Amino acid sequence: MKRLLITGAAGNLGKLARARLGHMADVLRLSDISDMDPAGPDEEVVPCDLGDEAAVYDLVKDCDAILHLGGVSVERSWDQIQRGNITGVYNLYEAARAHGMPRILFATSNHTIGYYRQDEVLNVTDPMKPDGLYGVSKCFGEAMASMYHSKFGQETALIRIGSCFEKPRDRRMLATWMSPDDFISLIECVFRAPMLGCPIIWGVSDNDLGWWNTDTAKLIGWRPKDNSEAFRAEIEATPCPPADAPQSVYQGGLFTAEPIHKD
Amino acid sequence: MKRLLITGAAGNLGKLARARLGHMADVLRLSDISDMDPAGPDEEVVPCDLGDEAAVYDLVKDCDAILHLGGVSVERSWDQIQRGNITGVYNLYEAARAHGMPRILFATSNHTIGYYRQDEVLNVTDPMKPDGLYGVSKCFGEAMASMYHSKFGQETALIRIGSCFEKPRDRRMLATWMSPDDFISLIECVFRAPMLGCPIIWGVSDNDLGWWNTDTAKLIGWRPKDNSEAFRAEIEATPCPPADAPQSVYQGGLFTAEPIHKD
Amino acid sequence: MKRLLITGAAGNLGKLARARLGHMADVLRLSDISDMDPAGPDEEVVPCDLGDEAAVYDLVKDCDAILHLGGVSVERSWDQIQRGNITGVYNLYEAARAHGMPRILFATSNHTIGYYRQDEVLNVTDPMKPDGLYGVSKCFGEAMASMYHSKFGQETALIRIGSCFEKPRDRRMLATWMSPDDFISLIECVFRAPMLGCPIIWGVSDNDLGWWNTDTAKLIGWRPKDNSEAFRAEIEATPCPPADAPQSVYQGGLFTAEPIHKD
Amino acid sequence: MKRLLITGAAGNLGKLARARLGHMADVLRLSDISDMDPAGPDEEVVPCDLGDEAAVYDLVKDCDAILHLGGVSVERSWDQIQRGNITGVYNLYEAARAHGMPRILFATSNHTIGYYRQDEVLNVTDPMKPDGLYGVSKCFGEAMASMYHSKFGQETALIRIGSCFEKPRDRRMLATWMSPDDFISLIECVFRAPMLGCPIIWGVSDNDLGWWNTDTAKLIGWRPKDNSEAFRAEIEATPCPPADAPQSVYQGGLFTAEPIHKD
Amino acid sequence: MKRLLITGAAGNLGKLARARLGHMADVLRLSDISDMDPAGPDEEVVPCDLGDEAAVYDLVKDCDAILHLGGVSVERSWDQIQRGNITGVYNLYEAARAHGMPRILFATSNHTIGYYRQDEVLNVTDPMKPDGLYGVSKCFGEAMASMYHSKFGQETALIRIGSCFEKPRDRRMLATWMSPDDFISLIECVFRAPMLGCPIIWGVSDNDLGWWNTDTAKLIGWRPKDNSEAFRAEIEATPCPPADAPQSVYQGGLFTAEPIHKD
Amino acid sequence: MKRLLITGAAGNLGKLARARLGHMADVLRLSDISDMDPAGPDEEVVPCDLGDEAAVYDLVKDCDAILHLGGVSVERSWDQIQRGNITGVYNLYEAARAHGMPRILFATSNHTIGYYRQDEVLNVTDPMKPDGLYGVSKCFGEAMASMYHSKFGQETALIRIGSCFEKPRDRRMLATWMSPDDFISLIECVFRAPMLGCPIIWGVSDNDLGWWNTDTAKLIGWRPKDNSEAFRAEIEATPCPPADAPQSVYQGGLFTAEPIHKD
Repeated sequence: MKRLLITGAAGNLGKLARARLGHMADVLRLSDISDMDPAGPDEEVVPCDLGDEAAVYDLVKDCDAILHLGGVSVERSWDQIQRGNITGVYNLYEAARAHGMPRILFATSNHTIGYYRQDEVLNVTDPMKPDGLYGVSKCFGEAMASMYHSKFGQETALIRIGSCFEKPRDRRMLATWMSPDDFISLIECVFRAPMLGCPIIWGVSDNDLGWWNTDTAKLIGWRPKDNSEAFRAEIEATPCPPADAPQSVYQGGLFTAEPIHKD
Repeated sequence: MKRLLITGAAGNLGKLARARLGHMADVLRLSDISDMDPAGPDEEVVPCDLGDEAAVYDLVKDCDAILHLGGVSVERSWDQIQRGNITGVYNLYEAARAHGMPRILFATSNHTIGYYRQDEVLNVTDPMKPDGLYGVSKCFGEAMASMYHSKFGQETALIRIGSCFEKPRDRRMLATWMSPDDFISLIECVFRAPMLGCPIIWGVSDNDLGWWNTDTAKLIGWRPKDNSEAFRAEIEATPCPPADAPQSVYQGGLFTAEPIHKD
Repeated sequence: MKRLLITGAAGNLGKLARARLGHMADVLRLSDISDMDPAGPDEEVVPCDLGDEAAVYDLVKDCDAILHLGGVSVERSWDQIQRGNITGVYNLYEAARAHGMPRILFATSNHTIGYYRQDEVLNVTDPMKPDGLYGVSKCFGEAMASMYHSKFGQETALIRIGSCFEKPRDRRMLATWMSPDDFISLIECVFRAPMLGCPIIWGVSDNDLGWWNTDTAKLIGWRPKDNSEAFRAEIEATPCPPADAPQSVYQGGLFTAEPIHKD
Repeated sequence: MKRLLITGAAGNLGKLARARLGHMADVLRLSDISDMDPAGPDEEVVPCDLGDEAAVYDLVKDCDAILHLGGVSVERSWDQIQRGNITGVYNLYEAARAHGMPRILFATSNHTIGYYRQDEVLNVTDPMKPDGLYGVSKCFGEAMASMYHSKFGQETALIRIGSCFEKPRDRRMLATWMSPDDFISLIECVFRAPMLGCPIIWGVSDNDLGWWNTDTAKLIGWRPKDNSEAFRAEIEATPCPPADAPQSVYQGGLFTAEPIHKD
Repeated sequence: MKRLLITGAAGNLGKLARARLGHMADVLRLSDISDMDPAGPDEEVVPCDLGDEAAVYDLVKDCDAILHLGGVSVERSWDQIQRGNITGVYNLYEAARAHGMPRILFATSNHTIGYYRQDEVLNVTDPMKPDGLYGVSKCFGEAMASMYHSKFGQETALIRIGSCFEKPRDRRMLATWMSPDDFISLIECVFRAPMLGCPIIWGVSDNDLGWWNTDTAKLIGWRPKDNSEAFRAEIEATPCPPADAPQSVYQGGLFTAEPIHKD
Repeated sequence: MKRLLITGAAGNLGKLARARLGHMADVLRLSDISDMDPAGPDEEVVPCDLGDEAAVYDLVKDCDAILHLGGVSVERSWDQIQRGNITGVYNLYEAARAHGMPRILFATSNHTIGYYRQDEVLNVTDPMKPDGLYGVSKCFGEAMASMYHSKFGQETALIRIGSCFEKPRDRRMLATWMSPDDFISLIECVFRAPMLGCPIIWGVSDNDLGWWNTDTAKLIGWRPKDNSEAFRAEIEATPCPPADAPQSVYQGGLFTAEPIHKD
């Protein structure tokens, strides 16, 4: 692969990808609306506002694959979400269509289904239940990817990321945690498959605790290796939330308790 | 009911609703971005751009129920769809939340699932397969309604309208047709139910031909009466499209053949 | 059929059955723990406490079929429910086993699933969600019937009765109503089938409003004829309960709001 | 339509089709291995052994549609079934492929699922459970039709015929009966659809009694009108089989009790 | 946790729990209707008949969690099952409700579904098929737990125990075996979860052989470690039952061959 | 076991079985239409054309179990497939019925479902989608096995073999590969089970990549050990087929691109 575009390169996942994916392409093209570290060897740094159609068009040019981590990743005001996650996604897919339809890994989220309870096992085909504007924007993104696949053949891996950090940070993340190593191997699986289609895959490690039927991971041959149990003792040393607290009840955790942000 | 808001009142469905729903409320508040006929007795005419947050806020004030037919109803450019069907829907739900959460009938569409084939029977729980930007915007609207229901208790009937015209216009509409009378009775059922929740219901008459399991219609006690067979002879007098034409193959018909509109 | 046993003959359904089922057997054997009218022609009146094993044994002797309407039919204390609906059911099935396994129509209830919401469509295979001790006792009865069918071949029709009255009494019953005529035809269908097995069937008329997929009714060829819509105007003249009231939210209605009765 | 081929034209269904389908095509080409009445106006009579590849090739030539009723329709020896229903079906599909792939209505059978019990509701997607060599041959035919559809685009309506006679002949047929009128309207629906695909449809009237979820009939707009209840009294005047007799227990009835025929 | 109540403490599972769960609570309160060993350090021994409402009320007082292993665990007469497993369960839930609703692990059983065949894979949502009075009583218990959860928020883990012994004792137990170690870890998982709800979980080790989809175990983060294959050679040295013996055919094994016990 | 019959003993799988299964029976009876190596100790070599009814009758005599690998295993002309895989299967089941119904392992194939796409996860209950005459013949074989099981109690393991070679040969086989060791252990599991029934089981190793829900393997206690990932580097050193090539798109791979063989 000649050039892999990473959007959201200034964020946590973006930095992780930047540090670990150099072997996958001759050049990493790194983009964000926020400041990024200067380009190192085999890197291109291209600042870009995803809401800017022309800029996104240029950004995607000459790329063979896109790791789309950009946009807003938490609950924010409508204006921010609309620009980054709604219009930004439209811009990205149009730019991809114009430039040979490079394969996309789209970072969608468990917040598309955040209002399911933590005592339910979900499949990727279960109806969406988003838990805020952010979750709704990710439902939108999944719909957009589906449409571009049906209409034009654009391939996208819709990865519903749980919680990707060095380690889980609370009890809920014992279920949703995806380790950095597993995330990297997931990315490799997505881009090596001869045919991808447009599958939805839970982005979660091999945790003992969980709510998701992870059958579709095998479609790309991804078998995560890490397990949040390694951190259970550490997590259980912190106070336990009540049984009826949002972080105990809902798969989306505290996002369900967020208000609509007005600015 | 004191005041029923009808958005999209200048459109075909809006005119139909205006003409037929006077008995449902003391006042019909009629709104559109296009010109409307002057207010008659027990009517208020309130021009409004759904993309204007403040205007929508005022529009919804003092309404007991909302029949949301507004926004773009065919394939259009992103700018138009984004303003009317994306930001417009956000504005509507925020306005409703600010004004006591009047019940909403949201006109969604079969184009949320337009890429399923005409030889498949669908349930409302089957994954979305939108057939264009318009369909994607309706997927977005369904997600938004779901979220406001989960988070705030806002009730919405998500009516996936087939083809609501005086009579079906082509072979595909023999399957998707919803008669004006059935549409009116559907609206009545939605607003009379003590509890509505946020169900998805196919907006389609009792046609012999069809692709949709209409079980959820009984949740609101709606039993459509009309049948497109009454118009079969008339339709079959027109040329038959080939078996592999989009209008023969896909539930969304010719929408699947639409390009991305660029202006 | 020579002799049809009707338990619960002093209750509303029992009286209805007594008045309307004379044509089905040479003799109706009528039983209840409460007072019954004296035996008319071709009738036997046999008072019986279902909790009395020996009495039930005698009661079932020489019967060719059993319409089991007996036991407690509303929320009551554990002692009453245990005696009538738990031990009483055990006694009935043991007596049937001893006497040639006459076919049984067992009046179970929508209160086996009363905690499902009124915006969900149920199948008979969905997991139980009983709404009180009464509902739990009916889950027990369904389990007992299943076991006697698997182990001994005893046939039972498990009829989950909605609301069987002359007419629906509130908005919820517009969904759950079974007319007396439809109930009578249902009974006829159960006892005429060459093979019955142990199916679960919703006991509900052909109402426009409803929450139940009634597919299994065709297993016995039962097609109810009445529709609660005939009474809608009358019902809607009464005050509408709030959207969040138990009778608006749950399929089991006010039973979900019942406490545990302590005497 | 210029020429409609009817195979099995000397059988009961074939005679019915011959008598009633003249309006559907300029010419009916009638074929059977048994003797047929001489050709009337707008008819061609073409004797043919389906096991003869060259003969079938000639038979299909110049036909616009095929109503395939030919082959063995009851339990017979392997040699007969293999020639008529196995190799015969291969020959038919190869001939169709050579001659422009005229649409086919393939008369398959409830005996593909005959070992399901009469207390189970089936969907067309449930796994096959054939009840004899005949049923196995029809499973084969369904598989062949599916393959030709996937590989070449050949369209077939797989009609799982229940019991098509003037009237039902026993209690089981109260469930499986398809009236001649309904069969004729079914054929019309199959051949008028712009796109057919390869759906499985239960060939059964609108009987009160039944075991099949008939949802797929709407894919072709077929709504049967007749009901076996019209004949219930007549049927119930005959002796009732025991509850554990094959005709009472299995959907395939007495076919389940047939031995393997050895000649 | 201050005090953990273990009912059925004189039984095999109870003794195991007593010996292994001291670390989970300051005090183990041990109860049975049979004789128990005297209380050791941090133990309370409280004999109790579960059929005695007042005694159970006192038993549950001051407990923070309940491991309910008590009642009859094999096929017994109705009187015994009714007292221990029916009224006993009612008494337990009422006592729990009166004392702050301590979380309950309820030992239900594979005999709730014992009449499924050993060539079927089951989910916890499949309809019950109990194999005797004991199995029926466990269906009752599951229904009771569901109702107390819906109505009052009482949490229960419904553990359908397979066969919990030191090692499997026959071929069927190669599928149903749960090792003592796995059982202990299961208990720990149930009581540590911030929110439990009322899930059904198969109580079975990580055996190669099995009939159950164990997806719900991840809801509490339980990943059993043992595998009955370790004992296969030993088991296969014993005579193999015929293919049509109850222990070969049914998931419930020999329970399906038990008569109704009359005393 | 005294005598195990292996059909197709001259083929790759047959040679593997011959070499590795000597421990399972006193005598291996080896059969093929092609030349086989001379009989070694405890072996019988019996040439046989499966299309010859009398010869197959003799072949099966005195066998306690049958490993049916015989017949055509790739796309061939109808005559060859009909003789080996259609009539041959009938002959085998009739011979088994005449000789005490020895248990059969029937080598069916992923080509029964070859037209599903590689981005879909399948269950064994999903409808067939064969990809050629060979696949159709295997659908036929599965139907035949089902019928003999329902009608006579004949047990068969329907093993849908993926790709059984020393190692995977292309990218698609990374998903479908079954190692020789896993195949041998699968055979052992099939013949040791006290009761088998007629389950469908995917014959595939524990590969990271795959499209099949392998739940039914646990019905016989088979847990494959090998993983095609061991060969990924080697495979990825070969050219990658295009995303829209049959071997990339369909589960059946290049079989979907095969024509109908005419000789």
